[in-house]
Amino acid sequence: MARLDKVKGTRDLLPEEMAKRRWVFERIREVFESFNFQEVLTPTFEYTELFKLRSGEEVVKQLYAFQDKGGRDISLRPDMTSSVARLYVNSFQNAPKPIKWYYIANMFRYEEPQSGRYREFWQAGVELIGSDKVEADAEVIALFTQSYLAVGLEDFTVNIGDRVLLDEFAKMLGVEDDIGLMRLIDKKDKMNREEFVGALREFGLDDDGVEKVLSLIEIKGLPDEVLPKAEELFTSEEAKAEIKRLYELVDLLDAYGVSKWVRIDLGIARGFDYYTSIVFEAIIPNDLGIGSIGGGGRYDNLIEVFGGKPTPATGFAIGIERLISILEWKGLLPEAKLRPDVYVIPIGDDREVKKTAIEITQGLREATVKADIELTGRKLRKALDYAGRLGVPYVVIVGRKDLEAGKVTLRDMETGKQKSIEKERAVEEILEILGL
Amino acid sequence: MARLDKVKGTRDLLPEEMAKRRWVFERIREVFESFNFQEVLTPTFEYTELFKLRSGEEVVKQLYAFQDKGGRDISLRPDMTSSVARLYVNSFQNAPKPIKWYYIANMFRYEEPQSGRYREFWQAGVELIGSDKVEADAEVIALFTQSYLAVGLEDFTVNIGDRVLLDEFAKMLGVEDDIGLMRLIDKKDKMNREEFVGALREFGLDDDGVEKVLSLIEIKGLPDEVLPKAEELFTSEEAKAEIKRLYELVDLLDAYGVSKWVRIDLGIARGFDYYTSIVFEAIIPNDLGIGSIGGGGRYDNLIEVFGGKPTPATGFAIGIERLISILEWKGLLPEAKLRPDVYVIPIGDDREVKKTAIEITQGLREATVKADIELTGRKLRKALDYAGRLGVPYVVIVGRKDLEAGKVTLRDMETGKQKSIEKERAVEEILEILGL
Repeated sequence: MARLDKVKGTRDLLPEEMAKRRWVFERIREVFESFNFQEVLTPTFEYTELFKLRSGEEVVKQLYAFQDKGGRDISLRPDMTSSVARLYVNSFQNAPKPIKWYYIANMFRYEEPQSGRYREFWQAGVELIGSDKVEADAEVIALFTQSYLAVGLEDFTVNIGDRVLLDEFAKMLGVEDDIGLMRLIDKKDKMNREEFVGALREFGLDDDGVEKVLSLIEIKGLPDEVLPKAEELFTSEEAKAEIKRLYELVDLLDAYGVSKWVRIDLGIARGFDYYTSIVFEAIIPNDLGIGSIGGGGRYDNLIEVFGGKPTPATGFAIGIERLISILEWKGLLPEAKLRPDVYVIPIGDDREVKKTAIEITQGLREATVKADIELTGRKLRKALDYAGRLGVPYVVIVGRKDLEAGKVTLRDMETGKQKSIEKERAVEEILEILGL
Repeated sequence: MARLDKVKGTRDLLPEEMAKRRWVFERIREVFESFNFQEVLTPTFEYTELFKLRSGEEVVKQLYAFQDKGGRDISLRPDMTSSVARLYVNSFQNAPKPIKWYYIANMFRYEEPQSGRYREFWQAGVELIGSDKVEADAEVIALFTQSYLAVGLEDFTVNIGDRVLLDEFAKMLGVEDDIGLMRLIDKKDKMNREEFVGALREFGLDDDGVEKVLSLIEIKGLPDEVLPKAEELFTSEEAKAEIKRLYELVDLLDAYGVSKWVRIDLGIARGFDYYTSIVFEAIIPNDLGIGSIGGGGRYDNLIEVFGGKPTPATGFAIGIERLISILEWKGLLPEAKLRPDVYVIPIGDDREVKKTAIEITQGLREATVKADIELTGRKLRKALDYAGRLGVPYVVIVGRKDLEAGKVTLRDMETGKQKSIEKERAVEEILEILGL
């Protein structure tokens, strides 16, 4: 007997879900394009080596890796950044800068099914390659913010952290494994305070170190309030310069009109190891256990890791599944209208009747009315039941007798009222009724 | 050193290509939806068994098959029909019929790179499940035809064949391996007449049999001309009933307004073994060596093969890569407009200047002008060069001195003329110039 299940952790997207997604994609696409980002799409799979280059341990563990029939090690993409970096290094190193690319595409990760996360999921994101200026960070973070606004969200925050400052902080504590410390700090929201303190001690911090970390992660809130605190905490030249960069970022974001959503949170590291400076993520209060609904940052070393000339870059990705969950939870998704407006029913196995039904249906479709036609040969009663179940507002009934008099019947499904109309005027009349 | 190539047989879709694709997808989507088909998307990979069920030998040989980390045999989808059949059998057997689904998605096949075909490619298609009536065939073939018209094609034909007639034909010849014969007939256009005759003899046909096949494949052309010939050739009741079905199909397609493109070609089998009745494909004369640019047919047994209750179905798939090649060759694709209309350049590392530049850029973007802003901190001269290379028509230059007088500079890149305009009126003025 046939094995009929879908693979665990995957799912089918049905019409209602697809209509919502399409709406979200279109809103995001409009904003991305208004900022002059341009769409690219890389292959669904790449050599596994490509994804390993980026070193993010978590990512490699969760790769959908396999050998193809030619014995090549291949993986389904876990995100788009590696592929985009490859594309840039292969073909765009000499192109005018900056390069502004966006993508809306599916990604894959192998996870234990109990995690409740999907093994195939979608991301919408951008990469801005070729500028190390804070103006580029501002452009990207403004677009990030506008993307959420475009789908109707308002009560989110875009929290900005900084990897230079976290590095400096690790130095201040005398920690050698700065990446390890960042990973730990990144996980702070998944633990209570006690667990977090325990983890910090286990990591090797003494009382003073723990205290310092706890005060660092308190440096969050409105930029005007927390940036002065950061200036007090950090003393090195490098840190001071980076704080200056944050001040300028915040000022430019004000010109973009998005200050209202911007917060500073120095406890943000963003999992991937390749970030080098400003990082950010979007947070929205919710009851769904959803943390960040997207994030990004500056990655000035990554292009080099992929074999290119040193090239600064910054970008972000928005998790579509999480975003849609939030939008659904908030009731912000427009109702998907899947039913046709008009359903045309030919009665009986009569060639002329069928042809007239087709002509009316096509006339409506050409006038951009969503019209459908009965195709199963069932009896009128059953066809009306079907239209009723779908919630179709108007039905046109075509029968032999009516037709001989040049007429068809128009039925208002809500009131059940029927009227006889001229066959030749049927399309026109329906357009009038629908107000088109 | 990094392995930086993409996998052989895959490719990157760059902005210009994506813009074209997007245009094609949208035109096709509009027609699909006007016929009240609704979008679904199944997972990119399924259990390999699912794809093997459908028995198409070619398909199985070319599967991108692998084992996942849990030891499960998985394959990337080679087409959508198997997944859609699985979805139907799992969850939609009791839903109101017919079900009308469409998809626009990527598929995968493992082929030797020398074939010149891509290992990842896109298809747009529909499946209509739950009607065995010729009305359903007509609806699907009309939509198929309209899809090509929607992207501007006109000189194509939709050639209709019939598997019942081919089966009857095999019986008439006394051939037991009817599938083998169909495969052979399907490949006729890839051989010259001599090779084809040789292949038929090798298959085991005698002179009379070869003669009959040669006359069968001549039964093609306008329905009015060729259907009477078919009536002469076939004598069984089953064949007569099927020819009657073709007559009705042609008549209904006339009501759909697509007769002009319809031809009958009894030599069409369409590779997949699961077709049961009417099959069809679109052909367009071209110098590119491209045969069919899409096709489909009725598959009344497939749902059963997948473990469902016997359920009739019909559908088609359009090959997007081939379609785009044809459209490009014919010059039917609209030019992709990728450059911004306005490029705003702040001069120098001056905070107020930058903020003004951002405000003007954002003002334009909010007015739906495609505006971009200089983000690399380069000198005015270089920024103007960049704008020139992109072909941007208008540049706004923001400098400290101008700004102190409340002004910015607007440069027409074509004439090189510049004028000073009020900073506050900059957005308005540009909208006027652009005629918005």
